[in-house]
Amino acid sequence: MSPFTDHPRAAVSALGEEKLIAAIRRWLGPVSPRAPFGIGDDCAVLPARRGSQLLTVDPVIYGRHFDDRVPPRAVGAKLLKRNLSDIAAMGGHPVSAVRAITLDARVSRRWLEQFYRGLAAEARRHRVAIVGGDVAECAGTVAACLTLLGTAAGPRFLTRTGARRGDWIYVTGELGGSRGTGHHFRFTPRLAEGAWLARRPEVRAMMDVSDGLAKDLGALTPAGSTPRLDAAALPVRRGSDVRGALTDGEDYELLFAVAGRADRNALQRAWRRRFPRTRLTCLGRFEAGRADDRDAGLTLAGYHGYEHFR
Amino acid sequence: MSPFTDHPRAAVSALGEEKLIAAIRRWLGPVSPRAPFGIGDDCAVLPARRGSQLLTVDPVIYGRHFDDRVPPRAVGAKLLKRNLSDIAAMGGHPVSAVRAITLDARVSRRWLEQFYRGLAAEARRHRVAIVGGDVAECAGTVAACLTLLGTAAGPRFLTRTGARRGDWIYVTGELGGSRGTGHHFRFTPRLAEGAWLARRPEVRAMMDVSDGLAKDLGALTPAGSTPRLDAAALPVRRGSDVRGALTDGEDYELLFAVAGRADRNALQRAWRRRFPRTRLTCLGRFEAGRADDRDAGLTLAGYHGYEHFR
Repeated sequence: MSPFTDHPRAAVSALGEEKLIAAIRRWLGPVSPRAPFGIGDDCAVLPARRGSQLLTVDPVIYGRHFDDRVPPRAVGAKLLKRNLSDIAAMGGHPVSAVRAITLDARVSRRWLEQFYRGLAAEARRHRVAIVGGDVAECAGTVAACLTLLGTAAGPRFLTRTGARRGDWIYVTGELGGSRGTGHHFRFTPRLAEGAWLARRPEVRAMMDVSDGLAKDLGALTPAGSTPRLDAAALPVRRGSDVRGALTDGEDYELLFAVAGRADRNALQRAWRRRFPRTRLTCLGRFEAGRADDRDAGLTLAGYHGYEHFR
Repeated sequence: MSPFTDHPRAAVSALGEEKLIAAIRRWLGPVSPRAPFGIGDDCAVLPARRGSQLLTVDPVIYGRHFDDRVPPRAVGAKLLKRNLSDIAAMGGHPVSAVRAITLDARVSRRWLEQFYRGLAAEARRHRVAIVGGDVAECAGTVAACLTLLGTAAGPRFLTRTGARRGDWIYVTGELGGSRGTGHHFRFTPRLAEGAWLARRPEVRAMMDVSDGLAKDLGALTPAGSTPRLDAAALPVRRGSDVRGALTDGEDYELLFAVAGRADRNALQRAWRRRFPRTRLTCLGRFEAGRADDRDAGLTLAGYHGYEHFR
């Protein structure tokens, strides 16, 4: 469904900003608490919380993260899910969000209502409060950015730093073909998996795969090491191939490092008990040397993940 | 200065995303701490803080909040200042921020560097840490949205709710002509003033004037009351007029209600001692009745503030 309408009366411009904001609050429903704890004041007031917090921001932009083939409800859900995936990648728990949206005046009210209802449904599912936002007009644009606050789900966060030479490299789910298959908006953020992994002491570092394994794995690789991957082990999504699994991006899967001396069988058994329907794959391990040691295994040097401005 | 360049080698697209992100970190400098407390991981980790927090989000969009006449440094500063003004309006203190930026590939590196240096200088001034963000490509767009977290500067926040019939209406600074005079990017957010006012028990409610007094005052007005304003008292900016002062918007001044029985002379004396260079004006008071009681004074019914999608 296209966000745009040719009928002036069906467009957001027919509402005007004040009525539009009232409609948005109605569409969001109970996930948006009353001011000062939600929309309606200069800032939202967040109740006091113990411990450190997580903060992340990600947009969805028409023509970039969605097009006319993506249902507007799924676009709204994706806006939150992209950020939930970042919270998952730290082993965190989402709490509250604000969003800023930029719309062409010709965007249809029906599209926007579905967008917000999709966002609200996803927020309800994860008990995230939408506490504020901004709506602005901008010709030719349908874009929204969401900032998500979270806390630790357990006793620690997992960052991208901490993997060591000899550590095993694991990934959840399947990789590649995200845009062609619709995975890029149908995915489920790995929040339960991320929280569970952060409680396993043998897991040393974690991130989500959003720009493609070939690009993202570099951020997890310890200095002086190179990832040695087994091409045959790659969990390639049906309809994709090795190149797609390495470079397509928008996988929103968890990539993590497990201590080289850990009992991998115990980890994998525990995983299957807890997440029987989610694939877990050991891709290889971090070895000594540089990326140009092409002695064996899959070399990533020839693959590039998704990069803006290329 | 236009954000766009016709020379491909001077454009952000010549850098590619990875080098662009490295450049942004360099331009931001020490206001951007290292991961996991800043840019470079899936989320930023914010150290634990006592008490409740403030959260606000506001964008700057090319053609809407700035144009070629606004220096790029001032655009970067304005992105933060718009949000600082919201924190000021609650009597808060800013702490950390994330920003998402959307750029046409033809945006010039020089423009973008100045934009980020302006943002960094403003962040340094207020000791705000820029802890994360996102950069995405989108044709025809130069837009950034910033989410700002804050805490209380004193023992309480001031919200828009709390004014009563009989309360006096005050505003800081001058109103009107913001776009024509450049005030919309040269303004100083009223953080010190907001924090000071939140400590004065006679101040009952507060907000910032961003869409024009005629529109914004409604949010402060208690139910069953109407603001009775003295047109002659309006602090009209030089080059503007009563209509401009009521409707132009982008004033970024503080509007607040003072208890009807308060010692206004004491308040005004204390203000002049603390803020000798900042004008403080009593505009009138909230009286019984509805907005259509046009018996005397300035009636706002004929004026509308800034509204998107009109």
